[in-house]
Amino acid sequence: MELQLALDRLSLEDAIDLARRTDYFTDYVEVGTSLIKEFGMRSVFEVKKACPDKLVMADMKIMDNAVYESKLAFEAGADLLTVMGAAPVETIEICLNEAEKRGRTVMIDLLNTDLERTAKIVHCPAIFCVHTSKDLQESGNGSFEFEGLSFLKEMGVRTAAAGGIGVKSIPSLQKSGVSIVIAGSSITKAADPSRAAAELKEACMKGMSSLEC
Amino acid sequence: MELQLALDRLSLEDAIDLARRTDYFTDYVEVGTSLIKEFGMRSVFEVKKACPDKLVMADMKIMDNAVYESKLAFEAGADLLTVMGAAPVETIEICLNEAEKRGRTVMIDLLNTDLERTAKIVHCPAIFCVHTSKDLQESGNGSFEFEGLSFLKEMGVRTAAAGGIGVKSIPSLQKSGVSIVIAGSSITKAADPSRAAAELKEACMKGMSSLEC
Repeated sequence: MELQLALDRLSLEDAIDLARRTDYFTDYVEVGTSLIKEFGMRSVFEVKKACPDKLVMADMKIMDNAVYESKLAFEAGADLLTVMGAAPVETIEICLNEAEKRGRTVMIDLLNTDLERTAKIVHCPAIFCVHTSKDLQESGNGSFEFEGLSFLKEMGVRTAAAGGIGVKSIPSLQKSGVSIVIAGSSITKAADPSRAAAELKEACMKGMSSLEC
Repeated sequence: MELQLALDRLSLEDAIDLARRTDYFTDYVEVGTSLIKEFGMRSVFEVKKACPDKLVMADMKIMDNAVYESKLAFEAGADLLTVMGAAPVETIEICLNEAEKRGRTVMIDLLNTDLERTAKIVHCPAIFCVHTSKDLQESGNGSFEFEGLSFLKEMGVRTAAAGGIGVKSIPSLQKSGVSIVIAGSSITKAADPSRAAAELKEACMKGMSSLEC
């Protein structure tokens, strides 16, 4: 499994510092929605500039205006961007077209997207991210949607998982066929973020070798 | 009916210039999602600074992380912000709490939110915005959701309407009980934006007096 570091609720300087300090252990760096809304496209540009060899995802959470917003993110240097599963299908398709034109990738964020809706978009050439929202986690109503992951596994699509993920979450995510583990606070709020990223990456790798046995 | 100018896909300078030139005819100025994602909270701050007596809405389209994102928008000077109807109910409730604490207002954007879902959140103390997305308009699949408006009118809640609105749209929106008409391109792309805003505002006012007769 690959590891994506999600940068949220940080100054741009701290975000870049964290991306650099954990660089060796991460496969993707995500410029979180909070950074995008606080600092604009400068956040994507600066993170990509600081980590030019890393795959950078702009967590745009696109709901509409997909040509313009995709262009913003890709021109700022994003290798991947997110569109909401809850957006109109037309919006998702535009994001896919804009990505394809540039050889980039779309992740469909399934936050608050039910299985019926997911089934309608599961044919899209994208990564599907099962996402337990921060607000649901904090309200105590957020349990990880393994049901969604089973469906996606069955459909044979590439999946990611986000929302309150730490080292302990890794084995079950691996069993669910997740390709990309997205971790935010478990790295960014750790006393030693580099060590936290290393432990997560190690757990991701361990699982893989045991699955290969 | 009141008139909201939506500022999207513009430089910050042009956005502020348009807000000022149409100031006399608008009741609200909306800092569009595209401006927020391109320039960050600076866009909200600069528009409010340029129009301190105008009600400024930050079209945050919140899907998650509602405490942090609400704080960003309100501290940048927004009088109102948007949360998606498609977001988890917990997220909508957090936005309402954050707004209430500060005496501000929440607009719930019903883009791609069906009636069943709308019925679950219609009790919220917010403005409900029926929204035909830009991407749906451009794909030719977007017709205005008068069904949604009828339901909201029946429920007696305050409503707004957005998406491809021009002067011709006003009479039917008025019949549907809409309180706030949100116009973007029909003003910002007009040869004379001030005149376009004046005509829209006049149509809003005319309808009102004929309804009063």
